[in-house]
Amino acid sequence: MNAELPPVGFDPAEYRARVAHAQTGMAARGLAALLLTTEPEVRYFSGYLTRFWESPTRPWFLIVPAAGDPVAVIPAIGAALMRRGWVTDIRTWRAPAPEDDGISLLAETLRDLAPGPVGVPMGHETHVRMPLADWARLAEMPGVELVPDGGLMRRLRLVKSEAEITKIRAACAVANRAFARVPNEIRVGMGLDNVFRRFQMLCLEEGANWVPYLAGGAEQGGYADVISPAGPEPLVQGDVLMLDTGLVRDGYFCDFDRNFSIGPPSDAVQTAHATLLEATQAGFAAARPGATAADLFHAMDRIVTGGAGGSDAGRLGHGLGMQLTEWPSLIPDDHTVLEPGMVLTLEPGIETMSGRIMVHEENIVIRETGAEWLSDPAPSGIPVIE
Amino acid sequence: MNAELPPVGFDPAEYRARVAHAQTGMAARGLAALLLTTEPEVRYFSGYLTRFWESPTRPWFLIVPAAGDPVAVIPAIGAALMRRGWVTDIRTWRAPAPEDDGISLLAETLRDLAPGPVGVPMGHETHVRMPLADWARLAEMPGVELVPDGGLMRRLRLVKSEAEITKIRAACAVANRAFARVPNEIRVGMGLDNVFRRFQMLCLEEGANWVPYLAGGAEQGGYADVISPAGPEPLVQGDVLMLDTGLVRDGYFCDFDRNFSIGPPSDAVQTAHATLLEATQAGFAAARPGATAADLFHAMDRIVTGGAGGSDAGRLGHGLGMQLTEWPSLIPDDHTVLEPGMVLTLEPGIETMSGRIMVHEENIVIRETGAEWLSDPAPSGIPVIE
Repeated sequence: MNAELPPVGFDPAEYRARVAHAQTGMAARGLAALLLTTEPEVRYFSGYLTRFWESPTRPWFLIVPAAGDPVAVIPAIGAALMRRGWVTDIRTWRAPAPEDDGISLLAETLRDLAPGPVGVPMGHETHVRMPLADWARLAEMPGVELVPDGGLMRRLRLVKSEAEITKIRAACAVANRAFARVPNEIRVGMGLDNVFRRFQMLCLEEGANWVPYLAGGAEQGGYADVISPAGPEPLVQGDVLMLDTGLVRDGYFCDFDRNFSIGPPSDAVQTAHATLLEATQAGFAAARPGATAADLFHAMDRIVTGGAGGSDAGRLGHGLGMQLTEWPSLIPDDHTVLEPGMVLTLEPGIETMSGRIMVHEENIVIRETGAEWLSDPAPSGIPVIE
Repeated sequence: MNAELPPVGFDPAEYRARVAHAQTGMAARGLAALLLTTEPEVRYFSGYLTRFWESPTRPWFLIVPAAGDPVAVIPAIGAALMRRGWVTDIRTWRAPAPEDDGISLLAETLRDLAPGPVGVPMGHETHVRMPLADWARLAEMPGVELVPDGGLMRRLRLVKSEAEITKIRAACAVANRAFARVPNEIRVGMGLDNVFRRFQMLCLEEGANWVPYLAGGAEQGGYADVISPAGPEPLVQGDVLMLDTGLVRDGYFCDFDRNFSIGPPSDAVQTAHATLLEATQAGFAAARPGATAADLFHAMDRIVTGGAGGSDAGRLGHGLGMQLTEWPSLIPDDHTVLEPGMVLTLEPGIETMSGRIMVHEENIVIRETGAEWLSDPAPSGIPVIE
């Protein structure tokens, strides 16, 4: 179905470099280890890639000690897959075990490996993926000291390696091809729910491993919001169809959208689309090392609202990588300084009439001299579906 | 693409009944409210259905007070969609707001609505979806008292309404049709990654809204594990291909699998397949009100291991509904008593040779007089792909 896609996975050197960076950060923060519980956190260091996280039943733990390799403390059902990767110290229990679902084993392992404060991501855009009662139990175990990670995981994941950027570009390329096929595959009269199904199939045909995210809308002259599920209403002349996909290729996301006019676009829609592309270009031009996330917000907001300070969506873009959305946020209050290797979405929105918006989105990476497109930027002129 | 699917969503009466049951449970437990943070918990009472939860950036809160209707405390980007449902008290903030991402608004709302202990799901198979630092901040706010929910959400969600069972059956019907097409769509020589893509497309063609979960394997005489992602290795004669899908139709999952023999099956594979179907039938026969989750485990374990007590997979089935896996677990230690309306998977596994297993899975609902199939149970004889 798809021949030109890059090889999957990473060389162990990639993971060793991540661990080395983490250990430098742990030393600076006085941490004896990191304790990680969520899918992207565990995968970041171990390469452990499975859709089994969809099941909320079992907790999974990865410990990155201040020195030495990571240690996995995981349900036995995951041992075979973990053993395929580079992590060799794998300690398992037979989960689910509601009375003690890995907590004693985890505490024992932490005591073995990491006498001292154990950093856990607790800040913005994180959560701890284990029952809160088990967290409280762990925190009270002798010899276990759980503390905030001081923003270390955020810091590490903000800047992508060249190998990660290659994977995000590959995901974007899949979506580029899927979007290019939309005008030939989608017709007036199709229900939006079937448009969503067909578009997910196009993403799969073009090389997505799965399509965790598809949102969009189709209403007259714009859409009311960008997160609702699709209903059965058919596409009719005058609708603006928007499709926004976060597809996954080899564990990395793209996240961008395209707008389509059902029949000839109105002047208002053409103008809005042109303004969104102009705002995106302004964000792209502003995106260089030393600029802040807030700078990019203002560069785009000046064009879409005249500098009013944004809308209910709350931001005009965000980080992207192992998750659909990552730090930073393109908002006035996020002063994260951009660095080479950061991958971002530019996502300006505009009101086309009362209660109707249009949103455009592209993906970029920050380079030494400025930004580079990861998605193929949309050509001027909204594409038309007849 | 699919004509005979039932209508989407629920009547508000369904949500009112859920709230009434919750309020009865709150009264018994002395709770002033429930505070909910995860996708299924929020949706259970509000009907709020969106794939936007894929983004980890923003927290979402739903409060169910001891009397009166639920109150949503959510990012402004979600207000339009929430307003389409039956919840009318919707309080929003412009997220992301890293300095105070809804915490003050949530505390204020809790103080308004619910002086007294606020129950939060903290037990097995739950997590709190918000930054732990924000949780700690909330817990210290004056007038906010956060306590365990005493298993109330688990209790409520264990037993499905007739309307929920209809939705799970519809999801199962989609997968039934997709599995039936596999022998005509999958060929020897296809790479497993492309088999996975093609199968997801079949699920979408047959009416899935999305396919959050697909796992499986294809190796000689069985497979090493059931949670690994698909690689490019082509299907060859003698492989046993297993596809296990959790597709979603209107917010409800199915979760069952099918095995296929690539070319004529060996005697060992035929015997293993027959034994798995026999075990599933034994689980089905044991599944009636008054039996326990452990009883179902033993009924199947007797057949697949001779009563050895299971394997590393840890369980032989589980609950199913708004999530791919829910309580209870079919394990020796889960003594949950089955009741009419519980939806379960029966999922026995067997070793076919050293390092190779086969797993079979069906979905059932407990009725007054016994179990009823939700998936179309697999006919005897493993299907063959040429």
